[in-house]
Amino acid sequence: MTDPLNVCLEKKPRFDQPGSLSSVGWTRPQRVQLAARGNPLPLDCGAELNPVTVEYETYGELSPARDNAIFILHALSGDAHAAGWDAEWEVFKRPWRKNRPGWWDDTIGPGKTFDTNRYYVICANILGSCYGTTGPWDVNPVNGEPYGLDFPVVTVEDWVRLHVRLQNHLGIDKIFALVGGSLGGQQALAWARDYPDRVGAAVIMASAARLGSQGLAFNAVGRHAIMKDPNFREGRYYGLEAPAGGLELARMLGHITYLSYESMEGKFGRSFQYGSKPCYRLGNEFSVESYLEHQGRAFSNRFDANSYLYLTRAMDYFDAAAGYNGDLVAACRGIEAKMLLLSYSSDWLYPPGATAELAGALCSAGVDTAYHEIPSQYGHDAFLLESETTAPLISSFLDQASQRG
Amino acid sequence: MTDPLNVCLEKKPRFDQPGSLSSVGWTRPQRVQLAARGNPLPLDCGAELNPVTVEYETYGELSPARDNAIFILHALSGDAHAAGWDAEWEVFKRPWRKNRPGWWDDTIGPGKTFDTNRYYVICANILGSCYGTTGPWDVNPVNGEPYGLDFPVVTVEDWVRLHVRLQNHLGIDKIFALVGGSLGGQQALAWARDYPDRVGAAVIMASAARLGSQGLAFNAVGRHAIMKDPNFREGRYYGLEAPAGGLELARMLGHITYLSYESMEGKFGRSFQYGSKPCYRLGNEFSVESYLEHQGRAFSNRFDANSYLYLTRAMDYFDAAAGYNGDLVAACRGIEAKMLLLSYSSDWLYPPGATAELAGALCSAGVDTAYHEIPSQYGHDAFLLESETTAPLISSFLDQASQRG
Repeated sequence: MTDPLNVCLEKKPRFDQPGSLSSVGWTRPQRVQLAARGNPLPLDCGAELNPVTVEYETYGELSPARDNAIFILHALSGDAHAAGWDAEWEVFKRPWRKNRPGWWDDTIGPGKTFDTNRYYVICANILGSCYGTTGPWDVNPVNGEPYGLDFPVVTVEDWVRLHVRLQNHLGIDKIFALVGGSLGGQQALAWARDYPDRVGAAVIMASAARLGSQGLAFNAVGRHAIMKDPNFREGRYYGLEAPAGGLELARMLGHITYLSYESMEGKFGRSFQYGSKPCYRLGNEFSVESYLEHQGRAFSNRFDANSYLYLTRAMDYFDAAAGYNGDLVAACRGIEAKMLLLSYSSDWLYPPGATAELAGALCSAGVDTAYHEIPSQYGHDAFLLESETTAPLISSFLDQASQRG
Repeated sequence: MTDPLNVCLEKKPRFDQPGSLSSVGWTRPQRVQLAARGNPLPLDCGAELNPVTVEYETYGELSPARDNAIFILHALSGDAHAAGWDAEWEVFKRPWRKNRPGWWDDTIGPGKTFDTNRYYVICANILGSCYGTTGPWDVNPVNGEPYGLDFPVVTVEDWVRLHVRLQNHLGIDKIFALVGGSLGGQQALAWARDYPDRVGAAVIMASAARLGSQGLAFNAVGRHAIMKDPNFREGRYYGLEAPAGGLELARMLGHITYLSYESMEGKFGRSFQYGSKPCYRLGNEFSVESYLEHQGRAFSNRFDANSYLYLTRAMDYFDAAAGYNGDLVAACRGIEAKMLLLSYSSDWLYPPGATAELAGALCSAGVDTAYHEIPSQYGHDAFLLESETTAPLISSFLDQASQRG
């Protein structure tokens, strides 16, 4: 969920320079067309989509037995560039990648948690996003115009359906492990549920079987902000001024939900932006206001407002038990993957209780499941910030999964 | 904070009809000018304001000894109409009052917690609001135009300074008890601190010495929404279309913070607005979305966007210890009033820990203080919804205060 590029909390991931022995070095995005006329991608909403292109990156080498693939599933605002330094940031006009490695660089690389000396690591941008995989700003072949709101509503299950095509394309019968936080964790869950024989293990972090009512409400307010922006124009703003103000607002709000009460108190408290006394004005006065505004602005420079609508809607719709009359245990029953679930004590978007509920259902369904609640003050963002804390847990889980494989 | 007129949770206050023995019956707002040329109201920001009118209501009779006054302090979106049925809703164009009693009618009236057979109950609209007390939509005598953003930034302490003038106007040397929830509780605290000999007791509910960083952040997003609305026009929208969309958004967001995770799960969960299956669309789909939109719209029909900016800013600025080098115990030391503090377990805007911190400081300062955390699922709204639960606590506190008086 978080924009890990802009995490401002004290705890910042260490940057490995591209030449470092523990960095995957310079990376290049790859693109592949995975749906075309005659082979469209069927969607949950009933529509079919073609063509569909997927942007992905890989790090490390696929083993001769093709059994060492770890598929990293990004969250709402993420992309395929999970590790290393993008050698083509200029080609694709992604200046925000210029001075920063991929969003999970501190966990992916030689000797790291997802050790590229050992594993073949894949990360792909999701359908409806704006980082190389087909989404609302791409051209609708029907009329040669950008889709805008004519893009069909997509679901987490649609993302999985597409990613399985990528899995096939890469010739990987069974993914060794899926790994995802937040919305990425929900993809992992759906994948393990819908394609049980294609997944060996799954690590699900800061996630749950569904988003709570409060989370639905925050998403709704964010979408309202975008759709009420006068530049929104029913989603037909491409080539015109974008609804940046609305997207900024949605991001400011989202950001609050990714942090925690404690972490905000610790980082910002009630400190003033300038000096130690109030200036008695309505504009930004407290540090936290300026911080949020900065985050919102940075995000609106790198994300598409329509994508934000589609991806938050997919987040809303996901309910692992929906196709099972609401019976979560029944939904989990077919899962063959070994599961590791991690929640974070101060996460209030996917609170520990919701992760624990999923862990309980998995256990009841007889799925090989481990669950840990990690004490953390970093809220939902913790899945990106507590890498050091969770590394031993994840490493030993992967070791065991490969032994028991 | 809440719009108690629109509380949708299952727990609704019972309506006493105007003819009921336990109702204060038909009420009429009163207005008095409390600052004029030659006697302006000095403000914390350094400006002075005149004229200043205050709208207030009273229920019950002031005793011959003038020692039975209870001053009710409303929160962000409240008004002076705390009890009974407004006989002049048409005169002042307040249609939302037509079929509903005042916002705290279930606690104020003959035989109720604030028993009008015994107490003289006063409630006044705060400075900067839009319900009869001077605010940004009133005419600036300097240019004959509505103030808009030329209205000075006001603080909780300014409200108190004005209300003490009302206290003088009513000839009440010492208020028997101040009672306020949320921002109203902060007024009570400031009043007891700044005018110790004018206050006998104070009941502070769902409140604290200051708002946390997360609360500042939510307020900032709400103000952004208003100020980015194209109809905002730097606050000069009077007589034109109001920035209703921005105010709606701010209110939707605010509303989430007044509820709790549990109460939203219980009331809305993930239920769909229509039917039991997704319609696969970006517009309202879940009940909670429609509810929030309804709340936002109702609010924007009855509240002024500029007032929202000013009142949330006052909420931000309030820090009981600010004038005491951050030393809350020092701030409390002069308080002579007996204090009753109530927090609500699921309130995350002013969480119990923050109320407890204030209670601790009061105790350390030697102030006669009682503190209770009320178990409740209703979040911040609980101070309006748990009236039955808290009635015995408040009644016995008032009884003791009058005996020890």
